[in-house]
Amino acid sequence: MFQIPRGTRDFTSEEMQKRRYVENSMRSTFQTFGYREIQTPIFENLELFTAKSGEGIIDEIYSFNDKGGRNLALRPELTAPTIRMYVEKLQMEPKPLKLFYFGNCFRYDRPQKGRYREFTQAGCEIIGVDSPEAYAELIAMGYKVLENSGLKKIELNIGNLSVLSAMFDVIKLPKDKRKYMVPLIDKSQFEDVLLALQDFGIKPKDASEFLEILETTDLKKIKEYVKADKTAKDELSKLENIIDLLKTSFDIKNPKLKMSIVRGLDYYTGVVFEIEAPELGAEKQLCGGGAYDLIGLFGGRNTPTAGFAIGFDRTILALETEKYKFPSLDLDAYVIPYDEKMLDKSLEITKNLRKKGKTVDLDLMRRGIGKSLKYARSINAKNAIIVAPKELENDSVTIKDMITGKQEIVKIKNIFQKFK
Amino acid sequence: MFQIPRGTRDFTSEEMQKRRYVENSMRSTFQTFGYREIQTPIFENLELFTAKSGEGIIDEIYSFNDKGGRNLALRPELTAPTIRMYVEKLQMEPKPLKLFYFGNCFRYDRPQKGRYREFTQAGCEIIGVDSPEAYAELIAMGYKVLENSGLKKIELNIGNLSVLSAMFDVIKLPKDKRKYMVPLIDKSQFEDVLLALQDFGIKPKDASEFLEILETTDLKKIKEYVKADKTAKDELSKLENIIDLLKTSFDIKNPKLKMSIVRGLDYYTGVVFEIEAPELGAEKQLCGGGAYDLIGLFGGRNTPTAGFAIGFDRTILALETEKYKFPSLDLDAYVIPYDEKMLDKSLEITKNLRKKGKTVDLDLMRRGIGKSLKYARSINAKNAIIVAPKELENDSVTIKDMITGKQEIVKIKNIFQKFK
Repeated sequence: MFQIPRGTRDFTSEEMQKRRYVENSMRSTFQTFGYREIQTPIFENLELFTAKSGEGIIDEIYSFNDKGGRNLALRPELTAPTIRMYVEKLQMEPKPLKLFYFGNCFRYDRPQKGRYREFTQAGCEIIGVDSPEAYAELIAMGYKVLENSGLKKIELNIGNLSVLSAMFDVIKLPKDKRKYMVPLIDKSQFEDVLLALQDFGIKPKDASEFLEILETTDLKKIKEYVKADKTAKDELSKLENIIDLLKTSFDIKNPKLKMSIVRGLDYYTGVVFEIEAPELGAEKQLCGGGAYDLIGLFGGRNTPTAGFAIGFDRTILALETEKYKFPSLDLDAYVIPYDEKMLDKSLEITKNLRKKGKTVDLDLMRRGIGKSLKYARSINAKNAIIVAPKELENDSVTIKDMITGKQEIVKIKNIFQKFK
Repeated sequence: MFQIPRGTRDFTSEEMQKRRYVENSMRSTFQTFGYREIQTPIFENLELFTAKSGEGIIDEIYSFNDKGGRNLALRPELTAPTIRMYVEKLQMEPKPLKLFYFGNCFRYDRPQKGRYREFTQAGCEIIGVDSPEAYAELIAMGYKVLENSGLKKIELNIGNLSVLSAMFDVIKLPKDKRKYMVPLIDKSQFEDVLLALQDFGIKPKDASEFLEILETTDLKKIKEYVKADKTAKDELSKLENIIDLLKTSFDIKNPKLKMSIVRGLDYYTGVVFEIEAPELGAEKQLCGGGAYDLIGLFGGRNTPTAGFAIGFDRTILALETEKYKFPSLDLDAYVIPYDEKMLDKSLEITKNLRKKGKTVDLDLMRRGIGKSLKYARSINAKNAIIVAPKELENDSVTIKDMITGKQEIVKIKNIFQKFK
């Protein structure tokens, strides 16, 4: 027997029903915000990802040589391919350019709960604009994409990497030490942050002040802390503006300031944000994004860019955790010929219902009414239509409601009306 | 500058609009026939494909070792993965099992017009039934999937590999020689078939009689030719039954008998069929399928299986060749604030329209009415909503129809009505 590759998944029809439902809901939301869908290949030249993330990424991805000796990689994420496509083909498009996408991505690491080697991302990029309303719209869209999918318990946090950088300046932490702080800050391991700062020679008082700012949601305090830094001050005013817009113009109830968002990626620049489903514990982060610089690195003309990625699989998991009622996978009707002579009439009834867009199946195994009703139940048919000689004499069939068990005799010409 | 890998494609939003439209139409048709969607991983263990198609396939696919030393392959097609999933997980499901899927597949060959290294297939399998009505339904569904996508000029041909085998028996062509005939027959190179048969020692008279049967659409002639073979006779009666059902119960106007369908794959067994778009020339085949045996080979309990694959990219090409009018990628409205002070009101109008599912964008660049109107045109906005102080005094805005150029002043509370 052949097995599925480790860390990958087959999706049954019940799972696909949920996935397509969420995908379609997300697509609609992206589209109402004026974003347009694109698609890039499953693999890219490996150098695209090493240019963005360094050689270290090779250990974490599926890379291989094709028969022409090219170094290829299954894409680990979708921002680099999108910006590659932009630089190659879309630079002349009118700005802003609003793009979204769905795609499978791959990473080579130990499979564990909620982490797979093949996984699905939804995401978007906005290229060519950096006004506060553009960022507010982007962040609000991330929130609405999740909310419109059916999620109720999500939390939005917003930070800014220029401000975080200015905070490091305040305590005079050397630039080459900052990368060691990133994973600790990212995981909110604040005691470890404190210890590490002291290891790097920062005075206890300075370190604990730094930590207080890292954890505060009070914009004024942060402003006061980095007041010497003009860029940080401007970024904070912009952040304030964005948060105001989120509340007043985009109906986002509780956007929270969180200076400890670092996004773990070194190409983010200013505003960053994360949306979490707290009930998911370790896998709670559903969406992350912000402003970033990548176009220049990829050989394009510099222009502002921002975007976000949504973990599609985690979103499904979050909806299941909230016991969201997905639309069920059922069938409008299952048609059962009483015997072989009833087949032609049964096929005709089936055909006419399908033509009108109804989901209809019929007994293809000539196995009689009892077994067919059992099968109809197993595939969640809402109704069974039994075509038998006696009723057919009056141009009628028996329709059995598979949920209530109620049966009624219906004229063939009235069947469709029954199903409206 | 980074480039897209050779033989792969980026899809722009205009192309994605077409692709999603066709995908959704195909999905609806599959569903009306009671088929249900599944999904398998992008890569599989290499041995899955060598077991099905022999070691030779390795030259034609992307295969690679992962870091754990496993031999993996980007899937070249979707039947083997589906049957692998069936044997692994779905054998206990009630029969028949009707499955469909969409997925990207990969092959390593020279890129040329209409042939890419990454391409999309739609397809289906029906497991556990082999009645004539089951085959007729399957074939009819292939036809309807294409027809409902909007195609007008398609042709359905039906053959049978057991009968072809019996035809070879009639002329006593040794079994080990038959594989050489397959590519010639498949490409309808009938003169070469004749020469090859004579090379293999078949008498000219026998060879030309064989050829006549290969090209005839007269079922009676074929029946007479293979009358000594009981299996072939039974299969021909079934084929006759299937063709009758297609005409009478499935409204397929002109299904044609074609004994020269070989499908080039050695796991097909009985009924085979192809649907073509003659206008596409060398790339005319859009759909191919039939009955096949694979479950046993993959370690499952033998049960009848049949299915088909549709070339998704070629279907799009065929629709474009027929100049099919795809729904256009437009925007319901583009909202333009007269100046910065109008931003809040503009955001509110935008928000309310989006909430009702309208696709709406607004000027995020504060660039004034002239430039914004130009941008609105470039992204195919159907209407521009201009929010300016004078009209706002009367709780109104200006709505400009971007197609006719007509402008009118509309109360804010009545905007949505305008867009219904």
